[in-house]
Amino acid sequence: MTSLSLRMRHLILLACLSAVATSLQADEGMWLFNSPPLKQLKEKYQFEPSSQWLEHLQKSSVRFNSGGSGSFISATGLCITNHHVGADSLQKASSEQHNYLKEGFYAKTNAEEIKCADLELNVLVSMEDVTARVSGVVKAEMSPEQANAARSNAIAAIEKESKEKTGLRSDVVTLYQGGVYHLYRYKRYDDVRIVFAPEQQAAFYGGDPDNFEYPRFDLDICIFRVYENGQPARIEHFLKWNSKGPSEGELTFISGHPGKTDRQLTSDELAEMRDHDLPYLLSGLNRREVFLTAFAQRNFENARRVREDLFGIQNSRKAFEGVQAALLDPEILGSISAREKKLRDGIASDPKWQPVLAAYGKIKQAQEETAKILSIYHYFESSRGRETGSYRAPRAFYSTLFKYARRLLRAGDERPKPNGERFPEFRDSYRESLELDLFSSAPIYDDVEQTTLTDSLTDMAGRFGYDDPLVRQVLAGKSPADRAAELVKGTKLKDVAVRKQLYAGGAAAVTAANDPMIALARLVDDPARDARKVFEAQDETKQQAYAEIAKARFAIEGTSTYPDATFTLRLSYGSVRGYEENGKPVAPLTNFAGLYQRAAEHNNQPPFDLPKRWIDRKSKLNLQTPFNFVCDADIIGGNSGSPVVNKANEFVGIIFDGDIQSLVLDCIYSDKQARAVSVDSAAITEALRKVYDANTLADEIENAK
Amino acid sequence: MTSLSLRMRHLILLACLSAVATSLQADEGMWLFNSPPLKQLKEKYQFEPSSQWLEHLQKSSVRFNSGGSGSFISATGLCITNHHVGADSLQKASSEQHNYLKEGFYAKTNAEEIKCADLELNVLVSMEDVTARVSGVVKAEMSPEQANAARSNAIAAIEKESKEKTGLRSDVVTLYQGGVYHLYRYKRYDDVRIVFAPEQQAAFYGGDPDNFEYPRFDLDICIFRVYENGQPARIEHFLKWNSKGPSEGELTFISGHPGKTDRQLTSDELAEMRDHDLPYLLSGLNRREVFLTAFAQRNFENARRVREDLFGIQNSRKAFEGVQAALLDPEILGSISAREKKLRDGIASDPKWQPVLAAYGKIKQAQEETAKILSIYHYFESSRGRETGSYRAPRAFYSTLFKYARRLLRAGDERPKPNGERFPEFRDSYRESLELDLFSSAPIYDDVEQTTLTDSLTDMAGRFGYDDPLVRQVLAGKSPADRAAELVKGTKLKDVAVRKQLYAGGAAAVTAANDPMIALARLVDDPARDARKVFEAQDETKQQAYAEIAKARFAIEGTSTYPDATFTLRLSYGSVRGYEENGKPVAPLTNFAGLYQRAAEHNNQPPFDLPKRWIDRKSKLNLQTPFNFVCDADIIGGNSGSPVVNKANEFVGIIFDGDIQSLVLDCIYSDKQARAVSVDSAAITEALRKVYDANTLADEIENAK
Repeated sequence: MTSLSLRMRHLILLACLSAVATSLQADEGMWLFNSPPLKQLKEKYQFEPSSQWLEHLQKSSVRFNSGGSGSFISATGLCITNHHVGADSLQKASSEQHNYLKEGFYAKTNAEEIKCADLELNVLVSMEDVTARVSGVVKAEMSPEQANAARSNAIAAIEKESKEKTGLRSDVVTLYQGGVYHLYRYKRYDDVRIVFAPEQQAAFYGGDPDNFEYPRFDLDICIFRVYENGQPARIEHFLKWNSKGPSEGELTFISGHPGKTDRQLTSDELAEMRDHDLPYLLSGLNRREVFLTAFAQRNFENARRVREDLFGIQNSRKAFEGVQAALLDPEILGSISAREKKLRDGIASDPKWQPVLAAYGKIKQAQEETAKILSIYHYFESSRGRETGSYRAPRAFYSTLFKYARRLLRAGDERPKPNGERFPEFRDSYRESLELDLFSSAPIYDDVEQTTLTDSLTDMAGRFGYDDPLVRQVLAGKSPADRAAELVKGTKLKDVAVRKQLYAGGAAAVTAANDPMIALARLVDDPARDARKVFEAQDETKQQAYAEIAKARFAIEGTSTYPDATFTLRLSYGSVRGYEENGKPVAPLTNFAGLYQRAAEHNNQPPFDLPKRWIDRKSKLNLQTPFNFVCDADIIGGNSGSPVVNKANEFVGIIFDGDIQSLVLDCIYSDKQARAVSVDSAAITEALRKVYDANTLADEIENAK
Repeated sequence: MTSLSLRMRHLILLACLSAVATSLQADEGMWLFNSPPLKQLKEKYQFEPSSQWLEHLQKSSVRFNSGGSGSFISATGLCITNHHVGADSLQKASSEQHNYLKEGFYAKTNAEEIKCADLELNVLVSMEDVTARVSGVVKAEMSPEQANAARSNAIAAIEKESKEKTGLRSDVVTLYQGGVYHLYRYKRYDDVRIVFAPEQQAAFYGGDPDNFEYPRFDLDICIFRVYENGQPARIEHFLKWNSKGPSEGELTFISGHPGKTDRQLTSDELAEMRDHDLPYLLSGLNRREVFLTAFAQRNFENARRVREDLFGIQNSRKAFEGVQAALLDPEILGSISAREKKLRDGIASDPKWQPVLAAYGKIKQAQEETAKILSIYHYFESSRGRETGSYRAPRAFYSTLFKYARRLLRAGDERPKPNGERFPEFRDSYRESLELDLFSSAPIYDDVEQTTLTDSLTDMAGRFGYDDPLVRQVLAGKSPADRAAELVKGTKLKDVAVRKQLYAGGAAAVTAANDPMIALARLVDDPARDARKVFEAQDETKQQAYAEIAKARFAIEGTSTYPDATFTLRLSYGSVRGYEENGKPVAPLTNFAGLYQRAAEHNNQPPFDLPKRWIDRKSKLNLQTPFNFVCDADIIGGNSGSPVVNKANEFVGIIFDGDIQSLVLDCIYSDKQARAVSVDSAAITEALRKVYDANTLADEIENAK
């Protein structure tokens, strides 16, 4: 029996050998919808999608700002994504009495649908190149800080102008690490209701051991409905349902939001990621997984409260381990070096571009400057990208209440400033997303907050030392546990009404509130802002350098390429096909029969146990129904929930995972063993009808017009 | 619902307040048998143990070199310890067909007893003060390296002389951090056989959530028999069994081997532990817990193979977290500072002792010097103390095969040297223990070895960076997974016969073997030895400084005290008594009825499920039988398995845990809530007879003469 991690690493190597062998891969690319791979599709597949075809798929695609993708599947607002994308909303809708995340949910009527606490969906409506305007404001004589301020100001102005003109959410998106800027306009939906979810054990069958593996047997779906003005929204662009699913060898397309790839990073940046960022991230994930698992084991209600958080942590841990393994593989590193060398040689060989070589040095220098403040930045400041409006508390303060405290404090300080001078997350164009998050009705549990905050304060003390002045100030003469208890018990921010009041009252109200969690946020605000300032100035230097490299690359390699993933809409494509593993073929499709067989092999013990409903309904099911399938399209985390469509633009499946071998796709494409894993559309309707008695819903989907 | 970690931290604080309140605690102390707390026992308990009483208890006590304590309970060689102490032997005796660790074991006849793969038991026969001879060789003009060499040489000579004279295992033990040296002579037993073990679920009922908690319901016992010349050994000193167990309020004694306390460490050393050592250790434990859990989840056989390792990791993690929480508690830190200040003030106030104050500075400086090589030392060299003969592979090479490779390599290099110049673990006096370990018949699983080695090589690359020259050499141009696979598949050291042959053949045979794992051990040998040399020289400096402080302390505070724990035999004492928690009393004794109640409260779900046998036999049991109890004696890890005796020197229980509040005992004693947790002797015989049908064994124990 070979261990997971070994198998994983071994196969990544094999995947990579293929990547080394050919420099141009068949089905590579996460393409922009305004720069689709028409040439590649025509050459390999003799298929030429029309602009209407592309527009329809684009506008049927949905971004889940909690971190995933989805698509409309009815004119009446039905939107499908993965269970693990919907899990955040399911968790927030659950209580000690109703564990929808674990037990599943089905609203037989519109009235029974449950409104999500803070879910925002975005549909990409238009794209516009604004590179000239964004980069034009940066002058050669500017310091990085000045350049960053100028660029930020320009971006804020573009976004505000667009929002005011169109009413649409307007984001300037950085592509090619700063080589290109596009203005994306989104239609926003923030009244989103839960229609259907299976039991988590059906959605995530096989648990952590089977995550990132294949063959699989997961019904990883969750169905929502978007509302406007209190009524199901009328949707113009939605995907027609194909009840048969795809065939082996069939060409499929994936439209979704890959989160982040690092294929254009310099070798120096990838080395930094391998030697520092990933070990740092994994150390944090490991400690969180251990202490949340221990917390969950104490009783059922504890387990319920942290279920989704724990799942997310395990998922990230496994994914990062995969990337780390790839970056420790000499074969992969060799092919990455070769890729960089080829470009650098190309630059060096043309006197016009030679000065661009200095950009590599600038990036490395910016890395070194950033490294000096990186611990402070991560522990006291870092947050997720502004793109989604979501926000993660920094490492020292693993607490939803701290997140609110900081947002209120900074909203009070930032919003009176001119729009362009604010932190991006407080600009007018993001106001609605900010408020959706800040006024979320999701439950907050004191015990969870105290546990996570105690752990993160302990982690902080271990990182900087107990006698560090800032640590001393944060702990305020108390142990991490006592400090956490004092903060969680003392703050009023659990109450949405209090948050609304402080937000409305601005800085004066925030100060007058005299709230201990806000006081903590204020205490660390200066060092956190200082670290962010350095981080962003160095990032500006990097963006300028990457922009130079990108210009040279376009000149040398041509512009028919795609940028690194940025959690914005992309088109991927590929064939439904199996692969070889340890000398044996892996078939591209599984079926329901395989699910029952796998459960039997494991004596129906967790995490391979079947939900009761699936045991009871076995005889009703057509066991030959295709369940999951793989294709060789180019995807990455964030693509979860992306629709898979055929040439007729029909919904034939939904992406929910990549195999272990696909984790290497973060830094380099391969089609040898890396596969995208989907739930087959045939399995979805069969299960809705036969297992979940959800004929009304299945009818609505299959008959959607 | 309050979380575990919070509760733990909160209670440690409360425990500490008591420690602060009074400077001398009632039942404090892990006393040397040749310096027992006669005065304290007489004053508080009006009890005066005779020298025969003490000798009997001393010689009935057994050290398990796998890491724990035990005692003889029959003249026919029966020896009882904890299940979690015996677990290492149970794991090694198990196979895919027989999972004795999980399912339990009972040998109805001597013939059915299973010989342990590599278990060594020691019984302390005599103690002798050799301080003058050990410290006399160190001259003021010597460098730390010279002093260390001279001291090592003196110790080796004493040990060798004693071994040759008496035939007994002879260890010079460092007490008071170097203030005192004693020569301990042990009778060794290395033919140890498994007689009885309950199911792990009965022994470790409540699993990780209940570990270090109270009330408890664990039958944490394991019974062995020692053999000599192929026959059950004749034991002169063994404990008479008391079938009723102790009463509330009764005075009890604990004779065992507390592993390590840090009560005499300087504040600087405790700060180092808090800010560096513990975060470092916990980061390693967290990553191991996560990846071994993931490995175990894949299938039942994986779970079986790593069961004991995983248990040990979780146990250590929880214990270290407790110590870390204590050291992050300002109240505890305050009382530690006060303790040090009092001593320093005493030293400063006497001109004769004033020069000793410089010792504190020397310790701090030695710490700083050590810190420079600490990463190399931990990743490439560190091993457990020589005391037990056991040895742990360094962090970069988490592999039993690497352990053997290094031992063989170094045995070849060290054994030709004069005895006094060798590393202690290769001296003549430890030869038998070394060989027992090296020639162990314990199974080695390729998949486990590859998994653990892959992880630790990845950890190493993350710590030092992929481009570190030593990392590059270790990985030899391969990924961690490929390198691990190559090493594990390529080495011949799984075969005991090969290990015997290479050991016998010495350096020449080791070189000629051309074994890849030995080549790896050789590759890192120079840097590892260099780091050890620095570490030991600085440790010598510390020992000299601590010896000076100890002399001053004896002069100022008197000699009626006890040294920090060193995994050597100690006597503790205390009353069976409950405590208060969250304002509610916790009774000192639990009973079988409580076990069934707890299972019912958790729907009999893991880790609160009952073994089938316990469900079936419920009606046969006297449910009022006392099960577990607490007393306020001063214990720490290593005391696991220690007998608890009454004034009549009868066996009334066996230590198996301390509560969460007792973890603070590492650095300071408290009797407010800190409690030692034991299995009641009454529960043991009741369960043996009614649950396990082990009447023969119960008769042998209860009728022992």
